[in-house]
Amino acid sequence: MENEFRQTSEHPVCAEHTDLRRIRTNPDFWYPVAWSRELRREKAIDVRFAGRHIVVVRPKSGEPYALDGLCPHRQVLLGKGDVHGDAISCIAHGLRYDRDGQCVSSDVSAEAQCLHLTTWACREKGGLIFVFMGEQSLADKIPLPDFPRVKDRRYRTRRFGQVVNCHYSFMHENLMDMNHQVLHSRLVGKMKPRFLGMDHGDGFVEARYTFVRTGGKQPLSEALIYGQRRRDGRDFAYRDVMTIRTQYPYQTLRIETQGIEEPVMELWISYVPQDRDELTNRVFGLLSIKRLKVPFLLDLAWPILVAFTERVFFEDREIVELEQAAWKDLGGDHNQEVFPVINQLRDLLRRCGQRPDGVGKAAS
Amino acid sequence: MENEFRQTSEHPVCAEHTDLRRIRTNPDFWYPVAWSRELRREKAIDVRFAGRHIVVVRPKSGEPYALDGLCPHRQVLLGKGDVHGDAISCIAHGLRYDRDGQCVSSDVSAEAQCLHLTTWACREKGGLIFVFMGEQSLADKIPLPDFPRVKDRRYRTRRFGQVVNCHYSFMHENLMDMNHQVLHSRLVGKMKPRFLGMDHGDGFVEARYTFVRTGGKQPLSEALIYGQRRRDGRDFAYRDVMTIRTQYPYQTLRIETQGIEEPVMELWISYVPQDRDELTNRVFGLLSIKRLKVPFLLDLAWPILVAFTERVFFEDREIVELEQAAWKDLGGDHNQEVFPVINQLRDLLRRCGQRPDGVGKAAS
Amino acid sequence: MENEFRQTSEHPVCAEHTDLRRIRTNPDFWYPVAWSRELRREKAIDVRFAGRHIVVVRPKSGEPYALDGLCPHRQVLLGKGDVHGDAISCIAHGLRYDRDGQCVSSDVSAEAQCLHLTTWACREKGGLIFVFMGEQSLADKIPLPDFPRVKDRRYRTRRFGQVVNCHYSFMHENLMDMNHQVLHSRLVGKMKPRFLGMDHGDGFVEARYTFVRTGGKQPLSEALIYGQRRRDGRDFAYRDVMTIRTQYPYQTLRIETQGIEEPVMELWISYVPQDRDELTNRVFGLLSIKRLKVPFLLDLAWPILVAFTERVFFEDREIVELEQAAWKDLGGDHNQEVFPVINQLRDLLRRCGQRPDGVGKAAS
Repeated sequence: MENEFRQTSEHPVCAEHTDLRRIRTNPDFWYPVAWSRELRREKAIDVRFAGRHIVVVRPKSGEPYALDGLCPHRQVLLGKGDVHGDAISCIAHGLRYDRDGQCVSSDVSAEAQCLHLTTWACREKGGLIFVFMGEQSLADKIPLPDFPRVKDRRYRTRRFGQVVNCHYSFMHENLMDMNHQVLHSRLVGKMKPRFLGMDHGDGFVEARYTFVRTGGKQPLSEALIYGQRRRDGRDFAYRDVMTIRTQYPYQTLRIETQGIEEPVMELWISYVPQDRDELTNRVFGLLSIKRLKVPFLLDLAWPILVAFTERVFFEDREIVELEQAAWKDLGGDHNQEVFPVINQLRDLLRRCGQRPDGVGKAAS
Repeated sequence: MENEFRQTSEHPVCAEHTDLRRIRTNPDFWYPVAWSRELRREKAIDVRFAGRHIVVVRPKSGEPYALDGLCPHRQVLLGKGDVHGDAISCIAHGLRYDRDGQCVSSDVSAEAQCLHLTTWACREKGGLIFVFMGEQSLADKIPLPDFPRVKDRRYRTRRFGQVVNCHYSFMHENLMDMNHQVLHSRLVGKMKPRFLGMDHGDGFVEARYTFVRTGGKQPLSEALIYGQRRRDGRDFAYRDVMTIRTQYPYQTLRIETQGIEEPVMELWISYVPQDRDELTNRVFGLLSIKRLKVPFLLDLAWPILVAFTERVFFEDREIVELEQAAWKDLGGDHNQEVFPVINQLRDLLRRCGQRPDGVGKAAS
Repeated sequence: MENEFRQTSEHPVCAEHTDLRRIRTNPDFWYPVAWSRELRREKAIDVRFAGRHIVVVRPKSGEPYALDGLCPHRQVLLGKGDVHGDAISCIAHGLRYDRDGQCVSSDVSAEAQCLHLTTWACREKGGLIFVFMGEQSLADKIPLPDFPRVKDRRYRTRRFGQVVNCHYSFMHENLMDMNHQVLHSRLVGKMKPRFLGMDHGDGFVEARYTFVRTGGKQPLSEALIYGQRRRDGRDFAYRDVMTIRTQYPYQTLRIETQGIEEPVMELWISYVPQDRDELTNRVFGLLSIKRLKVPFLLDLAWPILVAFTERVFFEDREIVELEQAAWKDLGGDHNQEVFPVINQLRDLLRRCGQRPDGVGKAAS
């Protein structure tokens, strides 16, 4: 018997597909790279996209801008530099660059005027700073994502996120796969999901679920979202519908209650690759919850909700990082998916992303 | 002069041999993977063998069993899961597997019944849980190792072990090579080993030594093992015989005193590869010491003995880890052995183990 | 658009040059490997040169000597061993080696007399222990470096250094490039360098600068070096000349004040590669400062000077380590040098060092 587990795996990875965990993020979309509150006036911040350093600068006046994050002179991180007026200066020699990426420090050295930095389209919306890392001529044609609840006073929005050590595809799968409620049973009690159906098209996959409580008490945080404490699970089983949608490259989750026009909860989330191999991602999430009839009740209960969502997020993170670790250990993807909607989602991510060799679209 | 130290080494590795540190453990034997006390009733534990995750489950009733350690659905570690009755369930989606490795969660998804886990033969003996990772049809024909002193009331047994960062071959060599007493001179005083002879055959190498004290005081812990405090080294020099035997893949060390029929000490030890490259191993050791004539004296003195053996183990571990580090640094084995018995042992380990390419036995 | 940043870089590395950060240190020079104070009588120390372990031994009497740092028997670090008289003994089996590298432990095993260690030329000077790692027949012909101020009572010398995580070439560039004063502006105020000229020849490049203060107060530590507090920058602008010279493989920095014959400050510095890839180096620096007219004033102020130089060193280290990190990240050197003297220095380091393949001189 051989110890070469990789070759003798009982479930070889299908040869005709590129391994999903090697599919790269399609850069022809707007991606969040920082929260607005992270970048003060006349400051700069270093962010990463798929291994590339980007410096985002908020000048003394006007909109933020984004440049390549390494000084072309000696490759020192520009995010460490100072902002004076409109220009960012490198910490090492003080070489200054304007928002067009042009070095404007001919006083330091005549040769410095040859130095130039790549510029990247940059926008700010809803408390997030976005960059466009793809073909720059497309930037104006591709719309920024929309999250109407963020500005709606009838909702309160929580901004959350952190770096998770896995490929972004695990994140999409995890959120869309509501069959993993067992994972959160200590937090939410026993919930049985019922799959209501799915929908898919050119750039999206959508799954709809409802739930029935089969045991355990409804947690307070859940009651807060639904606006009422429900005493008997059976009574209103299947009254709520949860819709999860990956509209490439973003993901949303919406909970609607029968008889109420607007969702009681809406989540918008984006996963931004950090390293070159895209095996870590930074999460930017906007979780909007509808305010209750009693004024300020949601605000009072806010800390409970924050703690609840943090714990759910923590449990999910453990799982996706275990999945990623097993992928590395086994040398590839051995997923044997049992939920058809997840296979649809996997096809979507493969189709919309880029093959690792960068030759073309992943599935073309 | 070049800096390419690897190539210009004065002692090139012999080309006709596979590097001993690349020889893999032969899986057609029973290997301990956990202590019985680590695995409670209705619990599961994740263990490793040469890079492979194994989940060992102790069901509600009956013997423990072993399965591949990653859920076939999404490769989540099953050792994190819960045991209900006879079945282990995955933490992520609650998919349950019985002791035959069959998924029994068709309620979660119809496709789940296609999921199946490899099973591994598993036995429990002497406070250890063993698995058989080789050709499964051989499992019943290959006997479990024997350690009769563990159940013998005239002996007390200490169970010890930890993960050591080196290939298992360094462990075998270190124990059989009693010429390294200088290493432990701060603990045991100056002891001069005298090599009495060796024996070797199909699956074993055995070395016999005796010792004479050339300086330093006999430590209390040593006196406890021998059952008496000896005042004059010369007087009883060469009265004790230490026999170290590698009976592949296990190792034993026995101390006999002239005129006493049974050994005063007997050690059984096994080194189980943890990572895929087998450059770390987990030690499982059973050290049986004969009780003294005064009842409970050995029990009273036990903490001293434990501390003594821990310190000897600590010093040995430092050396084998330095040897392993140098092997990595130099890119291969540069051993120039000066003790013939160690060369016999090295041949045995090469012969009985597996070549890294897995094509056949290492020496065939 | 592709994510393959390495290939699509706008500034490809010139193909006809070997990447400067891959050029190896030329071993045909004397390199410091330890401070004399680190090595007491009858002790040994493990040091590294370009990935090779060296043990330096100070015997009971006579000069220190250097041998390969791994015992040929089982490759255990000899630096862990004990020194008895003239010989170093290995911690594991007590095998002893004399200053010629010959094993003198035939009592342990007859085969031990075949064991032999490579010897390396070794000298001690000015509180430093040097080894010669190149062609040994050259050792006597190549002079040790000279640092006359170290023994001159009119100067006080500070010995400093630590391991810095970068290729030694970054260190040379950083010290010679006085245009990076902006980096230290919090420590030294605003200083504008004026380049006075350079000189270069067979094994050296030399740059001369003067400075004028354009803002900020002169720090006390600087006043101590110059021997007076200067109240008006303009008044004596361009009176001091700083000369930085790389005389391969060492570097010096000298500050002279107009009208004073001897330098007010002289620095000698050497960067010794630690790992095989030479991406870390250990700094050995001797900073000699001329004593002031008031006796003991310099000694009183010494702690201030120490703190000042430590902080400058700390800031420099951050930059060179960022440069090294970017080199790894980008997969090569993307430097676009804007200061001609630095390009001269880079050519010198490439010419005097060794190509990574070791076939010949880097630039031949």
